[in-house]
Amino acid sequence: MKKILVLGAGLSTTRMIDYLLDNAEEHNWHVIVGDISEETARRKVNGNPNGSAEIFDIYNEEKSAASIAASDVVISMLPAFMHPMVAEKCIAYKKPMLTASYANDDIKALDEKAKKAGIPIMMELGLDPGIDHMSAMQVINRIKESGGTLTSFYSFTGGLVAPESDNNPWNYKFTWNPRNVVMAGTGVSQFINKGRYKYIPYPRLFDRVLKRKILQYGDFEVYANRDSLKYRGIYELKDIPSMFRGTIRRPGFAKAWNVFVSLGCTDDTYTIEDSENMTYRQFFNAFLKYEPNVPVEIKIQEYCKDASDPVVFEKLKWLGMFSDRKIGLKNATPAQILQKLLEEKWSMDPDDKDMIIMQHEFKYEKEGVEKMIVSAMAVIGENDGNTAMAVTVGLPLAIAAKLLLTGKVSETGVVLPTVKPIYEPILAELKTFGISFEENEYMLG
Amino acid sequence: MKKILVLGAGLSTTRMIDYLLDNAEEHNWHVIVGDISEETARRKVNGNPNGSAEIFDIYNEEKSAASIAASDVVISMLPAFMHPMVAEKCIAYKKPMLTASYANDDIKALDEKAKKAGIPIMMELGLDPGIDHMSAMQVINRIKESGGTLTSFYSFTGGLVAPESDNNPWNYKFTWNPRNVVMAGTGVSQFINKGRYKYIPYPRLFDRVLKRKILQYGDFEVYANRDSLKYRGIYELKDIPSMFRGTIRRPGFAKAWNVFVSLGCTDDTYTIEDSENMTYRQFFNAFLKYEPNVPVEIKIQEYCKDASDPVVFEKLKWLGMFSDRKIGLKNATPAQILQKLLEEKWSMDPDDKDMIIMQHEFKYEKEGVEKMIVSAMAVIGENDGNTAMAVTVGLPLAIAAKLLLTGKVSETGVVLPTVKPIYEPILAELKTFGISFEENEYMLG
Repeated sequence: MKKILVLGAGLSTTRMIDYLLDNAEEHNWHVIVGDISEETARRKVNGNPNGSAEIFDIYNEEKSAASIAASDVVISMLPAFMHPMVAEKCIAYKKPMLTASYANDDIKALDEKAKKAGIPIMMELGLDPGIDHMSAMQVINRIKESGGTLTSFYSFTGGLVAPESDNNPWNYKFTWNPRNVVMAGTGVSQFINKGRYKYIPYPRLFDRVLKRKILQYGDFEVYANRDSLKYRGIYELKDIPSMFRGTIRRPGFAKAWNVFVSLGCTDDTYTIEDSENMTYRQFFNAFLKYEPNVPVEIKIQEYCKDASDPVVFEKLKWLGMFSDRKIGLKNATPAQILQKLLEEKWSMDPDDKDMIIMQHEFKYEKEGVEKMIVSAMAVIGENDGNTAMAVTVGLPLAIAAKLLLTGKVSETGVVLPTVKPIYEPILAELKTFGISFEENEYMLG
Repeated sequence: MKKILVLGAGLSTTRMIDYLLDNAEEHNWHVIVGDISEETARRKVNGNPNGSAEIFDIYNEEKSAASIAASDVVISMLPAFMHPMVAEKCIAYKKPMLTASYANDDIKALDEKAKKAGIPIMMELGLDPGIDHMSAMQVINRIKESGGTLTSFYSFTGGLVAPESDNNPWNYKFTWNPRNVVMAGTGVSQFINKGRYKYIPYPRLFDRVLKRKILQYGDFEVYANRDSLKYRGIYELKDIPSMFRGTIRRPGFAKAWNVFVSLGCTDDTYTIEDSENMTYRQFFNAFLKYEPNVPVEIKIQEYCKDASDPVVFEKLKWLGMFSDRKIGLKNATPAQILQKLLEEKWSMDPDDKDMIIMQHEFKYEKEGVEKMIVSAMAVIGENDGNTAMAVTVGLPLAIAAKLLLTGKVSETGVVLPTVKPIYEPILAELKTFGISFEENEYMLG
């Protein structure tokens, strides 16, 4: 019997744990769910005889080491900063490890050690990063193998609210970590277009959106998603002249969000004086000139021309930007205050469904002819627990664990799902769960 | 005989060392100038029998400790990050220390230790910080003592080129650390106006300038200088409704500089791909949309409306922004590339003179009457070595050392020149060197 240790039993783990339990009998697995709360872990196991729950606390050196030592494979759903601690123990006890998080420098530094221990540390096995890599590499490799040369690769992903639950003027709700949404795009966004490096500073990011229609879901807009340049290495497209990764929103989102960016109220680096007793109106007024005879509603339209668009202004008003309610957050940064306001309005109702949209656009040349492949995926959430986000993050991870336990993964060290033996079976099985890409090819020129 | 150890013999130390040597005989001092280069130190002493030169290397634990142990007072002109290392040794050997740098958290953390050792660590004894504190506190305390209540304090400083050397369209040259000029204002600028906290994000900082005429030197503009709020504590004006600190430039500077800020090319957090082989034209184009049929000169005016002002555009062109010259800097950040371009055009010629401008604006209420005091200072550099910057940074420091050695400083711990026994004699003696404030009082309302 093989023991799978799942670390962390948060909201997004339901589908992943269910998959493991569903497959446990056939493969002779036992699934141990470890969480800081045994009760939370037990709820996920839900009485299944092939599972059990235990307390797992990464800061309890002895007990956490014992849990990992007693397992055959470890799936970490803990916060990303804890992964290196888990990985160190997995290396010490020679246990393969899987996560849906980015292979950051701390993890990459463990590559040699993991190779020496003879185990893989499989990273980026979720949606984005995860399914994006797998589905892109499948098409990229097919084009290359058929003798084509890629000239351009654009790739977009968005976590959105499903059309049936889309009932606010922003056409947006929080379906994932709100803090990441508030901070999205800070820093510089970099990409390459026809051989020219392009850099968009954060204050202009939301000015420069692409427009797209995707599948049957209508219109979207896309803004650049930080460092696209590094994906030339990850996807083995070192010399590709155009490479762009973006984030998908509904049309009009960026123009309204731009008001917050230009005010400076997504800044997370300093705290606002006396934020606790301020009202939201006073908070936004703090970024505008002192003109006691002009209302905030007018000043903001003078400060930022986007705000004077009635469609944008309606979005701002709907959020309660001009309300006299107290913020009630002590020593808060602007980003924290904005997040609090947004959480009051953008939270999902229990019946709401989320939606994941992903689109890749490949341009390539073969025998003098230029063609384009557009490959798109949409996933609508089932319910509260099995959101589209939880399903698309959890299933590839769970399938990867099955590959590993059935001897299909020979790589060691830090491994991404950009190699055929990993992405092919995962994409094939995801299809059986309705997670698949619709592909269309077009002639160019 | 008292031994004064001066650490660092850089360009800006000439006037300070000369003052100490000039006063050495009268006070029975010996001035030891320590520098990483003995030759540089020797040049500053210039054969004066009351001075000597030695090699000083803060990373040579033993020798640097011996030098400090053998002295009576230490003046550190080393880079600011080295001050805590010097301060630790000064505490160990119970030697007073003086610098012109900010009392940052690392220095403040040594307050208790310095008090126990019975020595002062006198910080912020230069121009800004330095003369700004002294001259402001003199007026603030006078107003308070006469029964007035301060309602507003604005304070501006600028390091500029003197009118007789002002011969470029920016009316600006580098008279101090170029890097600090390129990075000026990054982060948020915060102040308070009639009791309302105000925050200006960096991308809008150069949009929001004040206009001023100062002394007989004509027109200037002022932009906010980072955190003005903390000065309420430093100047004991906790409840003042308005407090603003700013940086002085000639009119039109901010509007043109804003083009660089809005492009994002003052960013110092990432490097530009292949920066070495790029031209300046390509560099600026990297922040603009890919439109191969539109020249950079036109694209930049579409991107940033300030650039379409012919006065601004002339400034940009004059700098060589659109030139096909290679940058020639490897792995450079945008800020480093911009700095290189600016250094080619904004450097002082050997005969050029610099100018320091400082203005304080105090508003106060007394017996129901509101009044305003405007207090302004201008200093023009003498020559290459005795620039206005070097003189205004070095003289207060040297005078403070004299006060200390003649028993006029009783404070211990980390000390700022905001207390009367320190600022009064320094300001009085600065006057004898022509460094003085012209004060005017006005009725308000």
